[in-house]
Order: sequence, then structure tokens, then C-alpha cells
Amino acid sequence: MRAAVLNIGDEVLLGHTINTNLSLIAKTIWDYGILIDEQVTVRDEKKDIIEAFCRLFDKYDMIFTSGGLGPTVDDMTTECIADALGRDLVLNEDVLKDLEYYFISSGRKMTENNKKQAVFPSDSEVINNDFGTASGYFLREQGKWIIVLPGPPIEVKNILTKFLNRYKTKEKISIKIINTQGIGESTLEERLRKLDLNSNYSVNTYFGSGGVDIKIVSEDRNGNELQKLVDKLTKEFKENIYDYDSDSISKSLLKKLIEKDKTVAFAESCTGGNVSIRFIENPDASRALICSLVTYSDESKMKELDVKAETLKEHTAVSEEVAREMLEGLKNKYHADYYAITTGYASPTEDKRTNGLVYIGIYDRENDKTILLEDNFFGTRMQIIDRVTNYLFFNIIKLMG
Amino acid sequence: MRAAVLNIGDEVLLGHTINTNLSLIAKTIWDYGILIDEQVTVRDEKKDIIEAFCRLFDKYDMIFTSGGLGPTVDDMTTECIADALGRDLVLNEDVLKDLEYYFISSGRKMTENNKKQAVFPSDSEVINNDFGTASGYFLREQGKWIIVLPGPPIEVKNILTKFLNRYKTKEKISIKIINTQGIGESTLEERLRKLDLNSNYSVNTYFGSGGVDIKIVSEDRNGNELQKLVDKLTKEFKENIYDYDSDSISKSLLKKLIEKDKTVAFAESCTGGNVSIRFIENPDASRALICSLVTYSDESKMKELDVKAETLKEHTAVSEEVAREMLEGLKNKYHADYYAITTGYASPTEDKRTNGLVYIGIYDRENDKTILLEDNFFGTRMQIIDRVTNYLFFNIIKLMG
Repeated sequence: MRAAVLNIGDEVLLGHTINTNLSLIAKTIWDYGILIDEQVTVRDEKKDIIEAFCRLFDKYDMIFTSGGLGPTVDDMTTECIADALGRDLVLNEDVLKDLEYYFISSGRKMTENNKKQAVFPSDSEVINNDFGTASGYFLREQGKWIIVLPGPPIEVKNILTKFLNRYKTKEKISIKIINTQGIGESTLEERLRKLDLNSNYSVNTYFGSGGVDIKIVSEDRNGNELQKLVDKLTKEFKENIYDYDSDSISKSLLKKLIEKDKTVAFAESCTGGNVSIRFIENPDASRALICSLVTYSDESKMKELDVKAETLKEHTAVSEEVAREMLEGLKNKYHADYYAITTGYASPTEDKRTNGLVYIGIYDRENDKTILLEDNFFGTRMQIIDRVTNYLFFNIIKLMG
Repeated sequence: MRAAVLNIGDEVLLGHTINTNLSLIAKTIWDYGILIDEQVTVRDEKKDIIEAFCRLFDKYDMIFTSGGLGPTVDDMTTECIADALGRDLVLNEDVLKDLEYYFISSGRKMTENNKKQAVFPSDSEVINNDFGTASGYFLREQGKWIIVLPGPPIEVKNILTKFLNRYKTKEKISIKIINTQGIGESTLEERLRKLDLNSNYSVNTYFGSGGVDIKIVSEDRNGNELQKLVDKLTKEFKENIYDYDSDSISKSLLKKLIEKDKTVAFAESCTGGNVSIRFIENPDASRALICSLVTYSDESKMKELDVKAETLKEHTAVSEEVAREMLEGLKNKYHADYYAITTGYASPTEDKRTNGLVYIGIYDRENDKTILLEDNFFGTRMQIIDRVTNYLFFNIIKLMG
């Protein structure tokens, strides 16, 4: 199935909004074997929208539009599509009632304009929007699919997911994601090629939250066969797998900590608070987080973690010795099940050997086990910080078993 | 000047890469009075690239392309453009020498393929790339502009800036940005409309790193007139201005601290490390940062900042009383010039009154001055965290005077 995406909105072309919807749609529909061949953004101009829509409709089997479903005069996606396909605009009484109820219950006044959002091209199937007043919908024309989505990403995700659930039921598709860390995409792909994989499945790799993810997509629903393939890949990549079907490595770590009723304490130097915020980004973080100290300066390493002045002087802050003392200090200060620390260089150093040099340390109280790892990371300052954060989360998950 | 952007690359259409280049290009060229009317993404397919390029070239005065300048067979932007315009491909000896030098000095072997990056359509003006081997270039055809950029955003920024400097010199454009915080875009625009502004300038608002920025663009180089306008706007919005021409509020704060030779200490609860990482994101952070504690749990508030158990019990962690004790504890623990703390709810609460309720506290040691502010923030968890972080940075800058 070859598809196109039509984004509608001046704010994208002015650069005020980064178009994350294309990536969101592409990644989501790819699981269903649908590939995007072209994407276009046009202004909120009737002529431009109709022209682009007709051109894409002629070329592709499936058209996703995004944006232009609001109540203002600028929003004209629906009338343009009706116009392009020669369909009437029909008022949907159920949607109108929902809209009226929404305005009454939120104490706001419904204007004539708002009624626009209850009007659809004839024979459209409406998809309710859980995050806004703009319903999505889809329609069929000449065997092709047209899926009409709002602009805000949270609403796109909501309506697209609902659309694909209806689509999936018909097409019988199953999906599994294997989340890995610490293995490059090209190495992973090379090893995948060497395995003798069942060709009924499409197996692909892409960048996930914590490293490279492997995505298996099947168009038949034989769960047994899919599980066999997952088992095979698990065996091949078990060193690097931290979870399945996860969209966030910090969430995977937190989930595991909560499941096992364990807690964690962090002290970060070179990651500068990134470990902390990426963990706390998850609303449940407080269920497992004991403390998180950003000991960026030498002074705070000494004061907070009892790192010795001599050790800092003799070995510098980026050394195995200081990493050990940071871990020790954290252990003595708080009672947690797991302790984790980082220290390293996130910005380029003059000495080539220390460029991107980072130490991480983890301690498992129950088993009295310490892990100390040294590695060199590459990239921009924020890339290095993010990669070290992933590396730390991954190693805690692996240590937890 | 009406422009179009042509993005080339399978990785964008597969959703692996979010297209941030469109926004980057749009925002940057907007300063020069160039507006984007249409944007298209196509696959790495010769036929698709040429077809899209020709269509856009017919319709617009300026075409930016991005992607497809690498050394592999997939990279065919240059040959497609030469083909579309009927120009020859010409080897640029200077660029070839630079490439050879690059490969020798980095100890890598230059292949036949790499020479592709020294070939350009005839009569192109080459723009050197500081971050990669793919040079950018621009050419004129039938009075129109064609600007050919690589794919990676850092390289796009580099080459686009250089192109616009050449373009600017000819067109005589001057620009000033006023950075504000704590005032909504619509309020700001309304107040702008009420001022009697010189119509020689285009004055617009957009979302910046710390709040809403005002951008003034003038097509003549009369610096005096521009300064008068900036003075007028400064007078009108002085309560909300934190800097001029800044692309990051944390950088503005750090710059001010370094200029005045002052230091800062943070303790954050609800912002969970975000204040810290956004400050430390700047490579110079260590010149002003004394410490940064993430006291997310009650335990760490007590242990790190001597917050009293009774105060937590009586008033909860999100209270003016706890905010005061956090600030007091931080002051007693470290010696800095400025101290700043946050505590609040980043996730929705059942009680409407406490929804998004946040306290920030700042202490200025030299003047023995304490500021304690309470406000309600709205948005998703991460939006609230980011907004509180901006609010805190802004109030430290204002306190510094």
C-alpha cells in the first residue's frame, strides 16, 4: 500500500510548528505495511489544498491529511475534500449533540462556527477525538482510503490509533518490538541478515528511546510463529535486549523497579540532571526514586558524597577512583536497593584519550555487587549526555536480571 | 519572495527522522522577508526528485532543497538538479583538494564515490560545510534562486547562514530580537497592535526558548531608526524582557552570571533535574554553578535541605512553608550568590486548586533579598516542568537587575 501525507497549515510553513505528525504517522502506519512515498505541506488556502489533494489522490492509494479541522474560517480541510471528491457536506447529529454537551458542560458558549465541526463529507466514518472538539474521519473513494486527521500531535495519535484498529481488524496484522541498547544499527542489521529469518515477517530496525529497536510485523495472526521468531531474535541479541514493546528506556527501568518493589538513588556529574529528569518524566517516578543528586562541581562531590579532595586532585573528577567514591558516598547517605552514578566529559577535551570519556557505577545492595564501567562516547554535548543516560539505565536493568 | 522547500530522503518518509529542517529554514529565511508557500518530501528516487523539483521551480521564486548530497548511490540531488535545469556537472578542483586533505588527515581512505561531493551543476556558487564533507551551493536560473543544502540540521544551519549572509549583504537587511517571558503571545500581539509602530519594519512574535520573542526585521540598514523602535518596545515590555538576540534563556542567565562574576545554587523538586540539565547544557555552566540538588522525595528534602518533618506533614511538600525551608537549607549548605528552588505539582491533582500549583523561591545573598512566588501552570507534565524552569530562570535574571 503506497500512501501520501498532506499537512495543512501556515504555522508549519512559517516554522512555528515542527511537523512531528509526519514521523508519527509514518512510524505508526509502517507497522501495517503502509509506506509513505510523498509528503506535502500547503498553506490554509482553498486553492492550494484542493490542488495538492487532487494531485496526491491521483497518484496514491491512501491519503492522510492533517490539520485544518478547527472551527475558524481558516480551517477548510473538510470543505476542500468534499469539493475535490464531489461529495455533499452532511451534518452529523450525534457529533453535534456531543459538541453541544461539551460546550454546556464546560460553561462556554457554542457559536455558529463551532457547528462546522459536526459537518463531514457524505459517507464518511467519523472517529471521536478524546482530546479536542475536532473529530477525525475516513472515507473510501475509487477503492482508495482518505483519512482526515486534526493538527495537534496528541489528537493525531488518538484518532490514527483508532483508525488503525479498525483497519487492523480487517487486515489481520500483528506486531512485536524488541528494544536493544549498546549495539549499532549497522551491526544489528548485519547480524539480522545472517540469521535465516522466516520471510513471512518483515523485520526492521529503527532508533528507539534507548538505542536501536527491532520491529517485527506480520500480516497473518499466527501468534505461535511470531513467538518463535521473537525467541530466535532474543537468543541472538540477549546481551543487548532491555525490554519488549517499550517506547521509553526510563519507563522500562521504572516498571521493573516497581514490579520488584525496589528503589534507586542517582548521583550524576557529567549527565547534569538528565538521568534525573528522564526518570522523573514518568509520573510514577516517586514510587522508586529515593534521591537524585547533581554533583557537577568538585565541591558538591565532596560535600554530598564525601569524595576526598586528594582523590580529586590526584585522579581528577573523571576517574575510576572518583566514580568509586561517589558510589560509596551515595550508599552511605541513602538507603536504596540500587545506586547509580556518572562522571565524565560531555564536552570535547584537548587530550584525545579523555575525549568523551565517561565512568558509570552501579551498586546492588541486596547482592553487594558493584559494576564500574568506562567508555568513550561521541557526538554533541547533549548527544553524549543522552547516550550516557541510556547506557546507565540499560546497565541497571541488566543488573536487575 | 515566495519560496518552496524540497526535502529528499527515505528516512524522513519512514518517520525515522523528524523533519526539523523545514522549521529551521522557515524561521531563518523569514527574517529576510522570504515566505514558504509549499513544502514537499520525496524519496531517494531520481524520477520523484526531478518531477517535484520541476513542479516547484515552475511555481516559486526560490527553491531550497535539503538532503541527498552524500557520497553513496542513494544521494542524487545534484545530478537531478543538473538534469532538471539542463546543466553540465563540473568537477570543482578546490573542493576536491579539500576532500583529499580531509581524508588524508583523518587517516581514512577516499573512494571513487567520495569524488561525487566535488561535482556541481555548472555556474554554481559553492558554500563550504564546516561539519561534514557535503558542500552546499546555490545557483540562479531564470532570475530564480536554487539553494542546495545537505540533510543533517547542524549542516543545514551552517550553510544556510552562510548563504543568507551573502544574500543579506546584497539586500541590506537588519534584524533584532527581543526575548520576553511571562506574557502570552496573544496579549503581546494585542499590545503591539496598539502601539503606533513604524511601518518600515516588520514586527512579529514567535515562541522562543524562554517564552515569546519579538522579532524586528528591516530592509534598510538605518540602525538609528531600528534602535528607536527597540527602545520603544523595551519601554512597553520592560517587565517581561530578559534579553536581546538570545536563543536560550538558560544561556542568557549563565552569560549574566559570568559577566557579573556571580554563582548560583539550585534545589529542585517538581522540575526533577530539568533546571539543572537546561543550565548544564551550556558548556560554560561550571563557571557559575555551585550545586544542583534534585530533592524530589520528602526524605531528600529533609536530608539535603533540613526541611522539617512537621512542616512537610502540616503543609505538604507543595507549600510556601516548605519552599522557604528548602531555600533556607540550600543557603546554609552552600555558599553562592544566588539560590533558587522549585516545588510543585507537575502532574494533574484531584483537587482543582492545587492543579499545576508551583512555588519558586530565589535568594540574593548580597542584598539579603528573598523572592517567593506561587503560580499555577498548565499543560502536559513535561510542558509544566519546562514552563516552571523558564519562570525560574527569568526571575533570577530579573532579580539580578
